Amino acid sequence: MIIVLKPEVTEAQIKHIIDKVKGLGLTPHVSKGAERTIIGVIGPEDVLRVTPLEAFPGVENVIPVLAPFRLVSREFRKEDSVIDLGKGIKIGGKEIVVMAGPCTIENIDNLFEIAREVKKAGATVLRGGAFKPRTSPYSFQGLGKAGLQMLREVGNELGLVTISEVMDSRDVDLVAEYVDVLQIGCRNMQNFNLLKEVGAIKKPVLLKRGMASTVKDMLMSAEYILSGGNFSVILCERGIRTFEDSTRNTLDISAVPVTKQLSHLPIIVDPSHAAGKWGLVPSLAKAGIAAGADGLLIEVHNRPEEAVSDGAQSLIPERFSELMLQLKGIANSVGRKLNENI
Amino acid sequence: MIIVLKPEVTEAQIKHIIDKVKGLGLTPHVSKGAERTIIGVIGPEDVLRVTPLEAFPGVENVIPVLAPFRLVSREFRKEDSVIDLGKGIKIGGKEIVVMAGPCTIENIDNLFEIAREVKKAGATVLRGGAFKPRTSPYSFQGLGKAGLQMLREVGNELGLVTISEVMDSRDVDLVAEYVDVLQIGCRNMQNFNLLKEVGAIKKPVLLKRGMASTVKDMLMSAEYILSGGNFSVILCERGIRTFEDSTRNTLDISAVPVTKQLSHLPIIVDPSHAAGKWGLVPSLAKAGIAAGADGLLIEVHNRPEEAVSDGAQSLIPERFSELMLQLKGIANSVGRKLNENI
Amino acid sequence: MIIVLKPEVTEAQIKHIIDKVKGLGLTPHVSKGAERTIIGVIGPEDVLRVTPLEAFPGVENVIPVLAPFRLVSREFRKEDSVIDLGKGIKIGGKEIVVMAGPCTIENIDNLFEIAREVKKAGATVLRGGAFKPRTSPYSFQGLGKAGLQMLREVGNELGLVTISEVMDSRDVDLVAEYVDVLQIGCRNMQNFNLLKEVGAIKKPVLLKRGMASTVKDMLMSAEYILSGGNFSVILCERGIRTFEDSTRNTLDISAVPVTKQLSHLPIIVDPSHAAGKWGLVPSLAKAGIAAGADGLLIEVHNRPEEAVSDGAQSLIPERFSELMLQLKGIANSVGRKLNENI
Amino acid sequence: MIIVLKPEVTEAQIKHIIDKVKGLGLTPHVSKGAERTIIGVIGPEDVLRVTPLEAFPGVENVIPVLAPFRLVSREFRKEDSVIDLGKGIKIGGKEIVVMAGPCTIENIDNLFEIAREVKKAGATVLRGGAFKPRTSPYSFQGLGKAGLQMLREVGNELGLVTISEVMDSRDVDLVAEYVDVLQIGCRNMQNFNLLKEVGAIKKPVLLKRGMASTVKDMLMSAEYILSGGNFSVILCERGIRTFEDSTRNTLDISAVPVTKQLSHLPIIVDPSHAAGKWGLVPSLAKAGIAAGADGLLIEVHNRPEEAVSDGAQSLIPERFSELMLQLKGIANSVGRKLNENI
Repeated sequence: MIIVLKPEVTEAQIKHIIDKVKGLGLTPHVSKGAERTIIGVIGPEDVLRVTPLEAFPGVENVIPVLAPFRLVSREFRKEDSVIDLGKGIKIGGKEIVVMAGPCTIENIDNLFEIAREVKKAGATVLRGGAFKPRTSPYSFQGLGKAGLQMLREVGNELGLVTISEVMDSRDVDLVAEYVDVLQIGCRNMQNFNLLKEVGAIKKPVLLKRGMASTVKDMLMSAEYILSGGNFSVILCERGIRTFEDSTRNTLDISAVPVTKQLSHLPIIVDPSHAAGKWGLVPSLAKAGIAAGADGLLIEVHNRPEEAVSDGAQSLIPERFSELMLQLKGIANSVGRKLNENI
Repeated sequence: MIIVLKPEVTEAQIKHIIDKVKGLGLTPHVSKGAERTIIGVIGPEDVLRVTPLEAFPGVENVIPVLAPFRLVSREFRKEDSVIDLGKGIKIGGKEIVVMAGPCTIENIDNLFEIAREVKKAGATVLRGGAFKPRTSPYSFQGLGKAGLQMLREVGNELGLVTISEVMDSRDVDLVAEYVDVLQIGCRNMQNFNLLKEVGAIKKPVLLKRGMASTVKDMLMSAEYILSGGNFSVILCERGIRTFEDSTRNTLDISAVPVTKQLSHLPIIVDPSHAAGKWGLVPSLAKAGIAAGADGLLIEVHNRPEEAVSDGAQSLIPERFSELMLQLKGIANSVGRKLNENI
Repeated sequence: MIIVLKPEVTEAQIKHIIDKVKGLGLTPHVSKGAERTIIGVIGPEDVLRVTPLEAFPGVENVIPVLAPFRLVSREFRKEDSVIDLGKGIKIGGKEIVVMAGPCTIENIDNLFEIAREVKKAGATVLRGGAFKPRTSPYSFQGLGKAGLQMLREVGNELGLVTISEVMDSRDVDLVAEYVDVLQIGCRNMQNFNLLKEVGAIKKPVLLKRGMASTVKDMLMSAEYILSGGNFSVILCERGIRTFEDSTRNTLDISAVPVTKQLSHLPIIVDPSHAAGKWGLVPSLAKAGIAAGADGLLIEVHNRPEEAVSDGAQSLIPERFSELMLQLKGIANSVGRKLNENI
Repeated sequence: MIIVLKPEVTEAQIKHIIDKVKGLGLTPHVSKGAERTIIGVIGPEDVLRVTPLEAFPGVENVIPVLAPFRLVSREFRKEDSVIDLGKGIKIGGKEIVVMAGPCTIENIDNLFEIAREVKKAGATVLRGGAFKPRTSPYSFQGLGKAGLQMLREVGNELGLVTISEVMDSRDVDLVAEYVDVLQIGCRNMQNFNLLKEVGAIKKPVLLKRGMASTVKDMLMSAEYILSGGNFSVILCERGIRTFEDSTRNTLDISAVPVTKQLSHLPIIVDPSHAAGKWGLVPSLAKAGIAAGADGLLIEVHNRPEEAVSDGAQSLIPERFSELMLQLKGIANSVGRKLNENI
């Protein structure tokens, strides 16, 4: 922590700050320059972080030196975390994991049909929403428990890992009973009580980046889950909100290498929600793998015209299948590989 | 709803879209121009809004004409909503309501001390956090129920309306039992299940704008609460996230007149979270009233150096009191008034 | 300047950095902590700022302590700068200056008509564009020199100070010959050669903030002008670009008090370009004065339906006149005053 | 163009608008619905675009249907433009073009050394700045003409195409005399007079996207150059400004496929300025090619510690060479190829 003092700071103010720092069991280093005096405080910053030093008279600015997260950091764990999703699928290692399926689970026949297609193309994880965060109260809110049951049935029948979103701290146990991986959506990235709940379970959690969140904010939210005891966290870049209006969100592709530098956790890319239009999805998916992502989350629908949500951004199975072939080559070029089957 | 077709659209594709629109009980108007054909669909858009028209072959773009919200709109209700907060305080009318107090409730003595100061200066609502959304799992998370009890005791003793945040759908009843107004924080603006829960109670709700939310997004979230039966909603502009780094957030002052045009609900400004630094709070508070806000939410602390959260942005009582005097003049200049007592 | 080192930094790397710092004639202070070593370099940072310390092995991050601007800073000059615009009008002192007029100069009769109206309402500076930065090459690009001549004629006749934009370094002398204040538009805020040219003249310059510029960026651009010898610079907040789409830009009202803290230069607000819609202009204008701005720049047109540019955001003279009356009250409430005449 | 009317619009107001539209030689189509009346105007929108319809009484909103650019659009030209850069290098076709070199030209020996390295690694275009847009007036501003002479000498000697930035409309002829491709930097993307000047020359122009510009804004700026007669324009995505602070800018990777859909012009990616840190450059470069970019612009320096600008984001030749090998594989995976030599 660096405390930058105002040019007009008094000796009494400096002493007051130093006393405070010492009182917290830390050692301040004062450096006086021609224009500014600064106080460096080397040591555990956590105790200082919750002290409102900027409210002290004479303080101009307080600059943290250490990252505020611990368990998720590369410093805590040097090697990449490899997370077991069940059914033989692991993420974070050499193999790239592709998760695909409809935005919303509509009925069992349709889910089976899409699931067979994405499996054939090489996906190993089936996505499908049962609890849907909809901006309008008048939109379809998902099938709930019935949808989860369908997802489990299809996943078991086809040997696919399943993933679905949980939106409410009251539903964590229910969702965990039916699916292999629990997804926290972007709007809940800072729903801290929900993070605490999924921190207390034993299943892997996919945490999506919030639309106005920095990479560091995302890591802090992951820290909530790890600090609760659940180290099986997968991060997901799905676009942030900017002034650009030709896409639904702006995919922050740099978040992939930045996260890899700062953390040991796997990170995947969701090109569908970033683009908002299916025609852009293949380019973003390929960019994601080229940039070093550990996987992809892609919306696929067999009849996008009839999808109850996000039809405009869903790939039809044929295009998804073509994309998977191109992804294979890119994965190889960056020393990774897709599923053996393709 | 306007459906803009691609230049290369075929007659068969146009017919397919028209059949779909008619099948939904609506009437399409086709206009063919030299470069583009468009289809205007006049009528209730809700049914079209959930149909993924952009997924239809030949469609370039779909442009909504009507706003997606109804109950919160000026068209639904022409006159301003005036909401009764209890203890004789109403918001949305001529009188401006100032809500003030500490970010976090720390103990009863301190809360009493601050409450007396803000009351003396003219505030009529006492704010204080009992459940705190903290970005770090290692930060103090609030006193919970004990904090709510303190808030009720102080509010009753001093005749102040009370407001406190609810973060979890499981806590709505508890918070509603103790406080007069429930606050939904910016990180929960799109926690739709929480919105449904507060839509089912009888107490006023203060809904803060999310950091990456447009004004229209905020109105859609308010629509969730109204559609649940609770029309006592107060909106709050507290800053959005931009590239500017000299403030914690960028106060979107235009949100005040924009909301007033689109909706009948009251809107207040939170200058403290927008600024992040107490030295900027007075300017933003004054700008808020000048722009037409119905109230303010201001953090005040008697010993900011010891505040457990947000000390850097808290005004001390003396400065809050000075600010109130200046606000009085501005309120008068725009045809409003502050509390009688000042 | 604070140099934060990587956890795995070696002694040799530390020595290499220290040698570099000493070689530049500066004194490094090394502080070793449990998790990080930092090197504080107190002294003139300019020489370090141009040295790519982040490219040195072992360096994680370099944090500047001093602001990169000098002449524009509050530290260089404690008291507010008051700038003489000519014809008895000064900006930066107690009196608030309102600049008004059409976006584009269309013809002399029309300019006279608008100028008389804005003068009657209390404006003391007449704005009008002769060189227009248009996003489309097919839009009207302004009357050029003929427009400047009209502006001078009207200004002289009515005793109004005149302001007009200069877009090209080749036109600085021409514009300076005809108008009292030269405006640098937001798209040219970082046209550094143009800044150098206006730094070499003797007339006041109004510098608009770029759409993606921070307050500090704006101050650095002003530094270009002051470092060229021209200290008569007025800053202008006119909105930045964000995801909010109900306004043309997002007026960053906080920029007013932030600039006042960092710099001695006057700052005004342009509510017209921020809003993009005339119905929002009065609220933003009032907010600007309440927040502490030294003036306003407002588009006024007598027949907005026929304006060749920005008709949608222009106030008609009647509404401008009403606004001026309200502004008078707000100015008084914050210890300022508008023009004597109103 | 769609004109959406207010709910309370009068018949007289509708007639006034219709008369205006007809007076412009266009045909309005009125559709009346239960909640709103809209007027569709099919035909050349250009004449309407400059008419301030939003200023007409009764108008709520005006929605353009056609894109505002013509010559740069896919509709104007269906096939991809392939641009001849000289010395046998073409961009926009199957072959990917890599431009590399130092941020700033420092001296001829150093430039030769870097140029030999990047050529050996497979780059075919040498970049080097002679006129430098620096945010501080106190920073080194470039060698000017002497730098251009060095660039030409090295380019000719090694058979490399050369590219350098032009910042001032007065310098266009000078820069065009010495280099093969003229670069317009992001800060000048809307310096319209400079765009007109490079529209009048015969050499290829690389146009960088502004930090707060949408893809459509970039295309409008390119339209300026094409409308001047110069169709040899290459676009460049180099990052936009967002709230994310772990990178210098946020690379908008989606801009690559979006531009390809809207325009026939080639687009390249500049990973160096987007990242701001060399460690992130390889990931972004690979993502760019995977997303479909036609080339890359990469900063390479042999001694980043001594670079006069942007040392922190420059790759050393060894890392650039490794990157080129990986790019080759990715290019092949997406049906493209790098330079024959590698």
